[in-house]
Amino acid sequence: MANESRKNLTPHDGTIDRHVRENIIGQKGCVIWLTGLSGSGKSTIAREVEKKLSEAGHLVYVLDGDNIRCGLNNDLGFSPSGRRENIRRIGEVAALFADAGVITLVAFISPYRNDRASARKKTPKGTFIEIHVFAPMETCMERDPKGLYKKSKKGEVEYMTGIDAPYQEPDKPEISIHTQNETPVQSAKIIVEYLERNGFLCPPAVGEHE
Amino acid sequence: MANESRKNLTPHDGTIDRHVRENIIGQKGCVIWLTGLSGSGKSTIAREVEKKLSEAGHLVYVLDGDNIRCGLNNDLGFSPSGRRENIRRIGEVAALFADAGVITLVAFISPYRNDRASARKKTPKGTFIEIHVFAPMETCMERDPKGLYKKSKKGEVEYMTGIDAPYQEPDKPEISIHTQNETPVQSAKIIVEYLERNGFLCPPAVGEHE
Repeated sequence: MANESRKNLTPHDGTIDRHVRENIIGQKGCVIWLTGLSGSGKSTIAREVEKKLSEAGHLVYVLDGDNIRCGLNNDLGFSPSGRRENIRRIGEVAALFADAGVITLVAFISPYRNDRASARKKTPKGTFIEIHVFAPMETCMERDPKGLYKKSKKGEVEYMTGIDAPYQEPDKPEISIHTQNETPVQSAKIIVEYLERNGFLCPPAVGEHE
Repeated sequence: MANESRKNLTPHDGTIDRHVRENIIGQKGCVIWLTGLSGSGKSTIAREVEKKLSEAGHLVYVLDGDNIRCGLNNDLGFSPSGRRENIRRIGEVAALFADAGVITLVAFISPYRNDRASARKKTPKGTFIEIHVFAPMETCMERDPKGLYKKSKKGEVEYMTGIDAPYQEPDKPEISIHTQNETPVQSAKIIVEYLERNGFLCPPAVGEHE
């Protein structure tokens, strides 16, 4: 039915494209996708990168699992299918933000490899930066910033990633960060340096998108 | 289930807020919501505003019914419930874009008054600009840019707004545009002047958001 209906759609090619927008704000849009267990440090690192880049005058936006789940995805639960749809929508929204020229940070557990691969496909080659935020399970359980591991032990939370739901580690992430070894400030530095090295913090060169 | 699960969410207050982002890009984020029949001229006007503002160095992004339906909302049909969910998600995404500081144009039929009212509530007071794009039904049917009215006559399209699905006109839109009287360029000028007059095209004044 949905597919049937879509044959009446005529996507518009705006005369103002990504390249124009990136020149206006002097940076290149991208999706910085942080994946890892609850308590691994994804949100903390995302906020640190946001701070560092904003101070340097860049337009950055964090799509955060918790915030998104209170709005766009407030109809979804944490079952495998709810999680899959959660990540699918986030991937679409992140791609729109990056297309707008925004440096877009995404901080979700996003446990399934296939779902992250789908998100990657939604944005042009080279503009998806997968970051594996890693800490040993024991460390995550000690940190337990949302008290979810404790609740899971008591049976108050279902589908807890790493406990009774799987986490599939990235095969070839652009960056891996071990948050036992690196502080949030050091982790943010690694990411910002990656962005610098790969030309995201300046406007596109002439002809770059052609 | 979804509500039950959400009690474990802890929304983050980023230290970088909307105000900071707006200062970085020198404008105020807003949602410019164009509503009207198919063929009334919403997308054409949106693209014209985008062009005019981009040329002046502003960061603008168009969320377009057709584009969004190919991505984020490709699971939804055109039944009343599909349309409602379509507009709900768009309202959430538009609010995120405006929160990022982007001047966000939304071009959808969005036929239901309640759905538009819900979208308005998602973004701070004064930052939602509802625009009724109007042309008489006969004019829309003559223009028929997507051939949908013809298809509807042949019974090939269901739920065609204005034919076999309702369109609820806005009660108090911020702007009304009659596209029989105004060209797309004139219509865009009306919108850009509204944005200028209401301070959206410069950074927020000190203390404005406090």
